[in-house]
Amino acid sequence: MIKIAILGFGNIGGGIADVIEMNKDTIAEELGEEVYVKYLLDLRDFPDSPYADRVVKNIDVILNDPEISVVAETMGGVHPAADFSEACLRAGKSVVTSNKAVVADCGDRLLKIAAENCVKYIFEASVGGGIPIISPIIRDLTSNKIESVRGILNGTTNYILTEMTSKGRSYADVLAEAQALGYAEKDPTADVGGFDTARKIIILAALAWGRLATLDDVKITGITEITEDDIKEAAGKNCKIKLIAEASMSADNKLVLSVAPRTVKSSSLLYSVDGVFNAVEINGNAVGRLVFYGSGAGKLPTASAVVADIIEVSRRRSEVLSRLEWTKLEPGMSDISSVPSVLSYCE
Amino acid sequence: MIKIAILGFGNIGGGIADVIEMNKDTIAEELGEEVYVKYLLDLRDFPDSPYADRVVKNIDVILNDPEISVVAETMGGVHPAADFSEACLRAGKSVVTSNKAVVADCGDRLLKIAAENCVKYIFEASVGGGIPIISPIIRDLTSNKIESVRGILNGTTNYILTEMTSKGRSYADVLAEAQALGYAEKDPTADVGGFDTARKIIILAALAWGRLATLDDVKITGITEITEDDIKEAAGKNCKIKLIAEASMSADNKLVLSVAPRTVKSSSLLYSVDGVFNAVEINGNAVGRLVFYGSGAGKLPTASAVVADIIEVSRRRSEVLSRLEWTKLEPGMSDISSVPSVLSYCE
Repeated sequence: MIKIAILGFGNIGGGIADVIEMNKDTIAEELGEEVYVKYLLDLRDFPDSPYADRVVKNIDVILNDPEISVVAETMGGVHPAADFSEACLRAGKSVVTSNKAVVADCGDRLLKIAAENCVKYIFEASVGGGIPIISPIIRDLTSNKIESVRGILNGTTNYILTEMTSKGRSYADVLAEAQALGYAEKDPTADVGGFDTARKIIILAALAWGRLATLDDVKITGITEITEDDIKEAAGKNCKIKLIAEASMSADNKLVLSVAPRTVKSSSLLYSVDGVFNAVEINGNAVGRLVFYGSGAGKLPTASAVVADIIEVSRRRSEVLSRLEWTKLEPGMSDISSVPSVLSYCE
Repeated sequence: MIKIAILGFGNIGGGIADVIEMNKDTIAEELGEEVYVKYLLDLRDFPDSPYADRVVKNIDVILNDPEISVVAETMGGVHPAADFSEACLRAGKSVVTSNKAVVADCGDRLLKIAAENCVKYIFEASVGGGIPIISPIIRDLTSNKIESVRGILNGTTNYILTEMTSKGRSYADVLAEAQALGYAEKDPTADVGGFDTARKIIILAALAWGRLATLDDVKITGITEITEDDIKEAAGKNCKIKLIAEASMSADNKLVLSVAPRTVKSSSLLYSVDGVFNAVEINGNAVGRLVFYGSGAGKLPTASAVVADIIEVSRRRSEVLSRLEWTKLEPGMSDISSVPSVLSYCE
């Protein structure tokens, strides 16, 4: 049995527990053993939750439990999420996350710490919600020189622009409704100001070209100034306005990153990406143009990507354990709990 | 240096050599060593090719060379491609392929033989050309119960239907031109009859639900009966006709597979998939709807997927070798050529 901990029992954290429960047969078949949520770290209590007795408030409980091999971090914000992630990696536990703020700000450092400690730090859910996009870049497009990456990477702003376009509503009106429905934060700046989108394109560019930019390197324009007239003018030209992130390398080998509202023609696949859906377009010098489309946010889609990462790190751990047995390195090491986490894998 | 052999020096085989050459820096950076094409197996001679001196006519040369760790099979057709693939796997060489006929007809047997011989048999390029679709299903959607798979999986028929739609041309006219240009075979039955598409949906369904169907299990209708009037009638309803493959599980747990021309509404992402582009739509119970879009055929896009598979199996081999050294199992085994292929990995 693979025992895991989830840091943060909010929307995504709860979704992870839900996906593990609803698909437990499929997951067990995939891994050859079940995944069990042993701890949920949160400052709040959840007396009515079926997980009530597994909620802990002190990270040390998780750090000091040798049974925990994987930790899912879904706290949001940089601190203390980054500090807890670092502590877990140093304790020999792999960390998977949906937290784009931590990945964009500290991803390079956490990857290094993971490598030093022979564990994994992976983050498919940090960009594009449930859309597999990071794994294709680092696994399926390694045969290409990537020429450009662009896309619609934020569900909240795409929902607002879609409502403005399809129903002729004002920005302020749609934003207020989105806030009331919980689709947008009370302080919506991270979304509507384009900063969330910027963090995501920073992550994709880092994977595509091996260079980690900062927010200061991205030319960012949000959607706060978009008017009903702008939307109408675009519609008159058979276009829609979308918040588009773009990344490419300049002729003098510099990363060029931008986030801005742009008019998208009806012939573009991005034109049909509405509501909370996201899409990422990648151009490679061998493969040409690829587009990946799906739910860019939401409880279960995002949790789907986190749980896939949990399965991925657990599967590779199982592989190594079976190989250790196969090579007779340490005979009798068949009980997973008796194997030090640090042996999980080291590249 | 990773030394490979390519079986079949046709369009895709040549594309693999081209991609390895054009992106050799990127690939070497990814793997920590270069990939070198040591042999090309073909019955023909290629005196004007830069690879002329590497062309061999006897598979035994490849089977008996311990330096070859990966073989790319791009011969097309089931025999002798399947027999050669089996022989390579039994000789301890991983095999990667774009050959959907072999994968659909013998994939389960070859996967078993690969496992028995501690090597890999992988086939990302066999469906959707350059689109990463197999890897996402087996790696990124393992957290889901897959509910349905559908898509446009054949470039030739989609090109014919696109020309008929955009230019009002007849089926016979476009087919004749496609044959003259080399987009369609002289005997176009495999494409226009829907059989190529059927093989691809068989492969996707096998990965999604673990059951390998045969062509007899698929209800197949090709595009040969589609008239200009059908196209016009669809256009009048703001629709296009596309050759759509569909797979799902019935309530009584049976695979339901079909290939048929269907009318697709303008609101569907598949509506915008024109020419030789392909798209695959997957519905998962956690992630919801995903769409993957890209070049479904063509020399470089298909080769892109084959070379990514070559990198994937080579990377995992390198990982194991470094781990063998790390565990001090056999000190001094740092020269890759001195390590028996059978040690490459065994799960």
